[in-house]
Amino acid sequence: MTANLQQSMLEAIETELKRQVSRLDQPHTKPFHEMLMYHMGWTGEGAGAQAAGKRIRPLLTLLSVASVFDGNKEKKSNNMNWLHAVSIAASIELVHNFSLVHDDIQDNSELRRGRKTAWVKWGAPMAINVGDALFVIANQAALDLKEHYPADMVVRAASILNGCCLELTQGQYMDMSYEERTDLVIDDYWPMIGGKTSALLSACTQIGALIGYAQDEKIELYRLFGYHLGLAFQVQDDILGIWGDEALTGKSAASDLVEGKNSLPVLFGLEKNAEFAKGWRQGPILPNEVGAVAKLLETEGSKAYAEMKSEEETQKALGYLQQANPQGEAGAAILGLANMLLKRKQ
Amino acid sequence: MTANLQQSMLEAIETELKRQVSRLDQPHTKPFHEMLMYHMGWTGEGAGAQAAGKRIRPLLTLLSVASVFDGNKEKKSNNMNWLHAVSIAASIELVHNFSLVHDDIQDNSELRRGRKTAWVKWGAPMAINVGDALFVIANQAALDLKEHYPADMVVRAASILNGCCLELTQGQYMDMSYEERTDLVIDDYWPMIGGKTSALLSACTQIGALIGYAQDEKIELYRLFGYHLGLAFQVQDDILGIWGDEALTGKSAASDLVEGKNSLPVLFGLEKNAEFAKGWRQGPILPNEVGAVAKLLETEGSKAYAEMKSEEETQKALGYLQQANPQGEAGAAILGLANMLLKRKQ
Repeated sequence: MTANLQQSMLEAIETELKRQVSRLDQPHTKPFHEMLMYHMGWTGEGAGAQAAGKRIRPLLTLLSVASVFDGNKEKKSNNMNWLHAVSIAASIELVHNFSLVHDDIQDNSELRRGRKTAWVKWGAPMAINVGDALFVIANQAALDLKEHYPADMVVRAASILNGCCLELTQGQYMDMSYEERTDLVIDDYWPMIGGKTSALLSACTQIGALIGYAQDEKIELYRLFGYHLGLAFQVQDDILGIWGDEALTGKSAASDLVEGKNSLPVLFGLEKNAEFAKGWRQGPILPNEVGAVAKLLETEGSKAYAEMKSEEETQKALGYLQQANPQGEAGAAILGLANMLLKRKQ
Repeated sequence: MTANLQQSMLEAIETELKRQVSRLDQPHTKPFHEMLMYHMGWTGEGAGAQAAGKRIRPLLTLLSVASVFDGNKEKKSNNMNWLHAVSIAASIELVHNFSLVHDDIQDNSELRRGRKTAWVKWGAPMAINVGDALFVIANQAALDLKEHYPADMVVRAASILNGCCLELTQGQYMDMSYEERTDLVIDDYWPMIGGKTSALLSACTQIGALIGYAQDEKIELYRLFGYHLGLAFQVQDDILGIWGDEALTGKSAASDLVEGKNSLPVLFGLEKNAEFAKGWRQGPILPNEVGAVAKLLETEGSKAYAEMKSEEETQKALGYLQQANPQGEAGAAILGLANMLLKRKQ
């Protein structure tokens, strides 16, 4: 049953994403439209489900909508269902993809999900514009809610979305500015990933609850669930980026160390200011050093600390979810999705 | 009188812009906030009125609002005035500045209004993020209309704004894709400048009329006025970019030729496919050739054609403005602003 609901949602999301992006399918801008289609994973070499990604954010949004509906039979019978919310779910996925396209330019990343990034294919100037268009269409998709919801709710959803986008740019600023710093401590970590990872996940659950006609108190519980889910997810990602199993993560273990990523384990080590910190400040870690450095970090207590934090945030997220009390099939699916994200080995 | 109204508006716009941008003035993102402040012309070397620009778009927006109000005393006495619309005026100026920051990266431009561009000061990755933040804040400013206007009007204004932004990205795509083409004709010109220049000017007048509680028919006239004002303005800019007086334009005459800009005079020459077209297709025009090339273009009829088109669009713009029948002091000021834009020598 749950698998069917999720499958129906994923199909509706994909259809809506294509419809939204087709705004660029006009006589003078067909190749531009094609660039967005490629990035979204629908066309070009390597197109397909793998290239498109898992659409976790729009799925979490629709499950949030439906898990309130399920508990509100009166509203549901009033012909409102998750399908009406698909434009805001698409909007959030488009925001995510706008940030990916610009991130790839900023990080000089040549591959995304195994395929050439937009800037590699068409150059940075075009790719900047591809990202901009994805963000514009994200806003248009959010405003499309007006077809099915009262205008004041649309304004509120769009405000939450853009508030989250500002946090994204702030997280991105911190991430980039940290690259030149060697004086970072753990307190520098949380606002960065709060912006880069948690803001958008919390927008999914917060907007979903809003659109599901939840009361303000419940909307806040959904928001907190999404926010801490994001923190737990990111810390776990940081752990896997250093100590993960190559066969499962699909990237070389400890590549985060070679790339100099300011992850939680690294900032713990820098704050501790012992052997690891000395080495880190002397310059980039070479590929043949990563095993020893990862071991050193673990010895200094970094892995245990990060695992503790990941568990703390996981418990917070699950606690808020329990309080939010999501209903029915969608409610069960949210818990399943959270467990999949938080206990994943890849 | 008119000068006082405009001065009051410009002061309110500047205050609102600073208030909007101060969303980034938070503990972890003060240097990021500073980057936006610098780009807006408020801080850093060369800060001041010259660096900020003329704020023509938000001024046109507020004048549009007030020119409907003036003719609608009942609404006006209802405590609604142009000051309530200042957030959407600021929004449009922020969109304009977002596009400038990204344009400068895309065009590799090192100077903007005589000052170093954002990417020169902080690198392209940071500058991409500065532009992104300006666009996010533009959307937030648009949604701030909810403080003073009904939610359905806010949604409509935000939809017009984002529709215009999509046209901006489309115009930008065409402009960049044209760089590699030598088969361009005049028909390729209008959709490009429609997106790059006219879309935002028409959003100013269209949204202004909407927020001024004009009826749909009048809103459309305001939109058409802004749209053709933009076309006329851009064609005139193209003429000045080849045959302008260096002392007045502040840049070397014919610099558009050296830069290979696909302006209307150039596309006329390419479509004519005579001497000018042959030379253009052989490669970049050198600075010591510009005088002869400009003369050749003029001989082939390009200047006369562009002047005719500029005059045609000017007459269309003024015709729609007359039909829109803007009222009072603000109405007179709109006409003054249009005349200033269309008959300017610099």
